Amino acid sequence: MTVKAFGAHAADQPVVAMDIFRREPGPRDVQIEIAYCGVCHSDLHTVRSEWPGTLYPCVPGHEIVGRVGAVGAEVTGFRPGDLVGVGCLVDSCRHCASCEEGLEQYCTNGFVGTYNGPTSDAPGHTLGGYAQRIVVDQRFVVRIRHPESQLAAVAPLLCAGITTYSPLRHWGAGPGKKVGIVGIGGLGHMGIKIAHAMGAHVVAFTTSESKRAEAHALGADEVVNSKDPAQMQAHAGSFDFILNTVAAPHVLDAYTVLLKRDGTLCLVGAPASPHPSPAVFNLIFGRKAIAGSLIGGLPETQEMLDFCAEHGIVADIEMIRADEIEAAYERMLRSDVKYRFVIDTASMG
Amino acid sequence: MTVKAFGAHAADQPVVAMDIFRREPGPRDVQIEIAYCGVCHSDLHTVRSEWPGTLYPCVPGHEIVGRVGAVGAEVTGFRPGDLVGVGCLVDSCRHCASCEEGLEQYCTNGFVGTYNGPTSDAPGHTLGGYAQRIVVDQRFVVRIRHPESQLAAVAPLLCAGITTYSPLRHWGAGPGKKVGIVGIGGLGHMGIKIAHAMGAHVVAFTTSESKRAEAHALGADEVVNSKDPAQMQAHAGSFDFILNTVAAPHVLDAYTVLLKRDGTLCLVGAPASPHPSPAVFNLIFGRKAIAGSLIGGLPETQEMLDFCAEHGIVADIEMIRADEIEAAYERMLRSDVKYRFVIDTASMG
Repeated sequence: MTVKAFGAHAADQPVVAMDIFRREPGPRDVQIEIAYCGVCHSDLHTVRSEWPGTLYPCVPGHEIVGRVGAVGAEVTGFRPGDLVGVGCLVDSCRHCASCEEGLEQYCTNGFVGTYNGPTSDAPGHTLGGYAQRIVVDQRFVVRIRHPESQLAAVAPLLCAGITTYSPLRHWGAGPGKKVGIVGIGGLGHMGIKIAHAMGAHVVAFTTSESKRAEAHALGADEVVNSKDPAQMQAHAGSFDFILNTVAAPHVLDAYTVLLKRDGTLCLVGAPASPHPSPAVFNLIFGRKAIAGSLIGGLPETQEMLDFCAEHGIVADIEMIRADEIEAAYERMLRSDVKYRFVIDTASMG
Repeated sequence: MTVKAFGAHAADQPVVAMDIFRREPGPRDVQIEIAYCGVCHSDLHTVRSEWPGTLYPCVPGHEIVGRVGAVGAEVTGFRPGDLVGVGCLVDSCRHCASCEEGLEQYCTNGFVGTYNGPTSDAPGHTLGGYAQRIVVDQRFVVRIRHPESQLAAVAPLLCAGITTYSPLRHWGAGPGKKVGIVGIGGLGHMGIKIAHAMGAHVVAFTTSESKRAEAHALGADEVVNSKDPAQMQAHAGSFDFILNTVAAPHVLDAYTVLLKRDGTLCLVGAPASPHPSPAVFNLIFGRKAIAGSLIGGLPETQEMLDFCAEHGIVADIEMIRADEIEAAYERMLRSDVKYRFVIDTASMG
């Protein structure tokens, strides 16, 4: 079937309307009428070939929400009309140790990304959520229990939400724990909300003094201007966990010194050029760690969505029409968004 | 009391015989007649002021074994004649969270090193184990259960042994786990023996093909020449834990790619100049960590000594006279030692 979508025909071409092919739902497939799709920084990196390996035409988008339109004969978990979501993965090997544990994002044989991943469907690589419809195996579809009125603001949970929820859960954010969130953007604003809902004492780090009030409103108990050495020093040796959402190269030592013994600084963004080499001394004196984390697996994505529904958590979004995607990218590059753009697919006409 | 010792009067002076002061044992003190003292690379860094802050005269040595000569009135755990050891610490605040947990090496208020640490004893800083006698609070003395015939070879357990045992234990080395040990020197040769005794599958990494047979003899199940990309690639994504004992700057990415999901690369040496900045991508794809670890606390040091006694583990040593310390340093700088020099204090005359 042919579906309206927005994508780019080449790295130096803008995102424009195009028709794409979607397969007819197979026995285990869920056909989803996409209502909204969040705009992630990865979309921009991919569609403009800032990361290697982009295949064209490229249709980005992996923060997908909508309603089930049809299901295959063997689909048990979903029915037409259900509110559902699709995140960064649409397939994996399903039999390696990570897949067996529901950690498909660490699939040893390589997961299939929602866009730019290998597939036998035309054109030979996956096409993402900047489209009116998508067909996905039921294993990679999650249920949305938020009220429908919040649906657009749920979309960013599928990437920004799970990317912060998973490490916060893995490293034990909760009551009695002091947790830092570095960067107050698409990822960071979700991290603050989620860590707060988990019951942690949340400290937001920002270089923008102007974000202080916003960070408190999002749920931060304290806000630290990371450019002020005195403010930073006041927190030395006090954090159980720091989630660092900033991908731009910066001095990680400023955060490892803030960890207490056995604390972890977790990075969820890979910088285009390396961070300055972190001081090993800071790690040795305190048995501290610098770690990384990648989105989340399907069971945990469902858990995150249910947690957010229960706690009334959604993203703070700005809705855009599909023909505003390029303008939204330019604003993202200036960090001029609070905090996530979401495309209304009804605007695809 | 006056005690014969070996130390340096200044950074540019050699280690020579000198008389030093030791306090009379207080109520909780153990007076130890030192039989042997291991020679650690930290000794050299400190005595030559390669690290900041060395106070002179400087008497190094923190791999101390000997017999109890006298005890204070309140000492309950030790009696004259007992075989005992002293490692890198002789005091700490004793009341912070780390001290309460027996992790005195991470004392929030700063532990007192066995040499070059603050003390009210003359000359105002601690003097180490290159001496015939030392007086230490009982909390910082450990019992040696090895046969006396092994006493000299037990000395390096007090630093090299605990520095490797502690992270191996903390990160769960044992049956079913694949553990790497990078570097086959003073620390690494202990790491191989201990990880093997813990029941892990041990892979030794070396840049010296000549160390292959030795590494197997120490207990390595496999030996990898880290300069051979094919040998390294064969182990990609397979390690639960890698203990890196090499302090010289090198590319850590070569080891993070060898970790499986949730694996940790633990560094126990701080390089004088930074390692090349590690790739964040390697950490994100697999939720991996780069961590550090510092020696061990007193309860764990006792546990390590008991473990080594039970498994018949000692260091491989070369015994030297005190007047050979400078020559030993020069050989250490050429990595020409298998694997630890130990000073026979009887040679102090």
